[in-house]
Amino acid sequence: MDLTRAAAEALDDADPLAGFRSRFAGASDDGPDRLLYLDGNSLGRLPVATSAALARVVEEQWGEGLVGSWASWIGEATRIGDVLADGVLGARPGEVLVGDSTSVNLYKLLMAGVDARPGRDVLVCTADDFPTDRYIVGGVADSRGMTVREIAADIDEGLDPAVLAEALDERVAVVVLSHVAYRSGALADVVAITRLVQASGALVLWDLSHSVGAVPVELGAAGADLAVGCTYKYLNGGPGAPAFLYVRRELQDQLRSPIRGWFGHRDQFAMGPSYDPAAGIERFGVGTPPVLAMAAVEVGAALIAEAGVARLAVKGRAVTDLMVALADEWLAPSGVALASPRQAGRRGSHVTFAHPAAWQLTQALIDRRVVPDFRTPERVRLGPAPLYTRFVDVWDAMDRFRTVLDERAFEGYPAERARVT
Amino acid sequence: MDLTRAAAEALDDADPLAGFRSRFAGASDDGPDRLLYLDGNSLGRLPVATSAALARVVEEQWGEGLVGSWASWIGEATRIGDVLADGVLGARPGEVLVGDSTSVNLYKLLMAGVDARPGRDVLVCTADDFPTDRYIVGGVADSRGMTVREIAADIDEGLDPAVLAEALDERVAVVVLSHVAYRSGALADVVAITRLVQASGALVLWDLSHSVGAVPVELGAAGADLAVGCTYKYLNGGPGAPAFLYVRRELQDQLRSPIRGWFGHRDQFAMGPSYDPAAGIERFGVGTPPVLAMAAVEVGAALIAEAGVARLAVKGRAVTDLMVALADEWLAPSGVALASPRQAGRRGSHVTFAHPAAWQLTQALIDRRVVPDFRTPERVRLGPAPLYTRFVDVWDAMDRFRTVLDERAFEGYPAERARVT
Repeated sequence: MDLTRAAAEALDDADPLAGFRSRFAGASDDGPDRLLYLDGNSLGRLPVATSAALARVVEEQWGEGLVGSWASWIGEATRIGDVLADGVLGARPGEVLVGDSTSVNLYKLLMAGVDARPGRDVLVCTADDFPTDRYIVGGVADSRGMTVREIAADIDEGLDPAVLAEALDERVAVVVLSHVAYRSGALADVVAITRLVQASGALVLWDLSHSVGAVPVELGAAGADLAVGCTYKYLNGGPGAPAFLYVRRELQDQLRSPIRGWFGHRDQFAMGPSYDPAAGIERFGVGTPPVLAMAAVEVGAALIAEAGVARLAVKGRAVTDLMVALADEWLAPSGVALASPRQAGRRGSHVTFAHPAAWQLTQALIDRRVVPDFRTPERVRLGPAPLYTRFVDVWDAMDRFRTVLDERAFEGYPAERARVT
Repeated sequence: MDLTRAAAEALDDADPLAGFRSRFAGASDDGPDRLLYLDGNSLGRLPVATSAALARVVEEQWGEGLVGSWASWIGEATRIGDVLADGVLGARPGEVLVGDSTSVNLYKLLMAGVDARPGRDVLVCTADDFPTDRYIVGGVADSRGMTVREIAADIDEGLDPAVLAEALDERVAVVVLSHVAYRSGALADVVAITRLVQASGALVLWDLSHSVGAVPVELGAAGADLAVGCTYKYLNGGPGAPAFLYVRRELQDQLRSPIRGWFGHRDQFAMGPSYDPAAGIERFGVGTPPVLAMAAVEVGAALIAEAGVARLAVKGRAVTDLMVALADEWLAPSGVALASPRQAGRRGSHVTFAHPAAWQLTQALIDRRVVPDFRTPERVRLGPAPLYTRFVDVWDAMDRFRTVLDERAFEGYPAERARVT
């Protein structure tokens, strides 16, 4: 690979997604001291269209339309869900609902899945999954008198399906797994693992938070059962934006939400005496969705659907390949080790590096206007967003990273960790 | 009472809250054909300051500050909670958390309350409570093998504590009640009922959705255990705005959320192996809160705190008294019956009327730019918001209501009900 900056510029010139950069606030800056934002995997950038969309919802719909605007808001959770289903998740209309947080959605589907597998008393997750996933699995298991099998996943290389296979038997009700590992970016094989889990009679519940909008998610083709995911990362829906949930159509009638809110009712405004769950995906709704936040999700989801996940994945692999190649050349000699799968097809769109002073390196990079994030243990995580991160952004970020290492600038930072996001 | 329009104008001239009208979009219009919005008890008006606050969060904090803005967002749920605790709910700092929907919060506290009363297998609610409350109570009871005692509450006059007393015994774990009844506006006696329930050894969980920001809520003085509430009604937080939950400080250590999300963890960014709940109210957090929607809640909550609940309650009683007096004079002869407590001290800030053609009347009023809402069975609900509804707004609305009746204009509307909010 040609590792010159000119080569990176040439890749940008040939990037079919280049036109999308101008659709994001701040992403077109090309000054030498510009902010190099490599944390779109944590909080995606602001789409330029979001402000106007929000102003319309706030000033016209809320301010002027007042309560009458519920005529359009009422269908928002499924309308945005369908945009995600069709344009991003490879699912069918009526299989995706937007609302609540990823954690709440995970809880709802996990409880519903347990109820749909009576007599089975084991939940499976990986010991390395994102904390909220593990905590929720543990909480559900405790409350239902179930056992959790936390299986080993290599924190850099991800889950080996053979290890998972050993944990599956007729006692397992639901398996909770992340599609892309939050720390290493390791990509799980959704098709193979779904088949494996289903063969054991269990349900599989995918957390797509770190993959959606960056790598192809073909829920329909994989025959996936259940999924949840975040909209504030690659989907650029804004801080804490409402999450989504997916339930395969054929399963919807068999599952019931543990939280019987009025937005999951078949006829919520009849306000009748008993709870009668809606026929389709709406049965997994609970309370009134946060309309302002939903409006921002709609803009972000539509942008990703417009760009197309296939193109995003190609760009994601190329831009992380460049990052890995530059790290081999510039960072490895200073003791920075790749902590993600080396093969692009086995990664999402972020790459993680290990170094004993990862915490100090993170602080030094931020002071040099490179935004990565720190993850335990001793990892620096860099997430180029395929939709708006340029190849030269990666080149320049790695160049600043190299300088921090070469000048040992990170040594001036305190090793003691502050509370970080 | 002087029922002339001039008398209503005189009441407006003397209204100490009059200055707040200009703080809400559209509320200062005084043209003869203006919209008379009497549904602030369903969706409160847009505060003028909200657009700028949102623009700051979107463009400066998200657009420019990016992930670094979590330094200020991270404390938002308790910061806004403290504004509500101190300024609106009569609670102490650290007793209120903002986030999730009212339904999800009700579920969390109800499940936690059941766990805190082991050996008790009955939940109590009223047969007339807001649907989502009854549905969630039923769902929790089913999942825990408990029984629900749905006690009778007069749908116009509200709950008689003597009826509640009969339902209380050593089997009752949690009692779920609304402070102000969603249909009639009947006000429950929080102090007396809390004492009654606590004497039986049960916990009481108040739904404050229809009272908060309109009538005094003195959770601390009442020694209330648990509460949840909505921020998009009198708190003017915007459509579907994140709700709040309250747990009395002394109870917090004894209660655990059934949904163990990372925002309820003692040290969420340590991302450690096991779930260790936060020490205080934060243990009831779950996923990442919707920051954009939270920003609008902050504006609305601060406005109510600034106005002061005591003044709002005085205005609310006066404005609904005027409404009742005008209805007696103008509407009762046409068969419109008061379906709320007649005594102002026994009401929240909305008044409900019964008429066999309530659905058609609602449509006719909307066409004449009066916005009430319809509630089963055959009720028209009118909610003047003390902070921005004038006495003359009520006078003019009742005048248009009278005209609709006198001209029998409502008879031209279809009796078949559409889906309504």
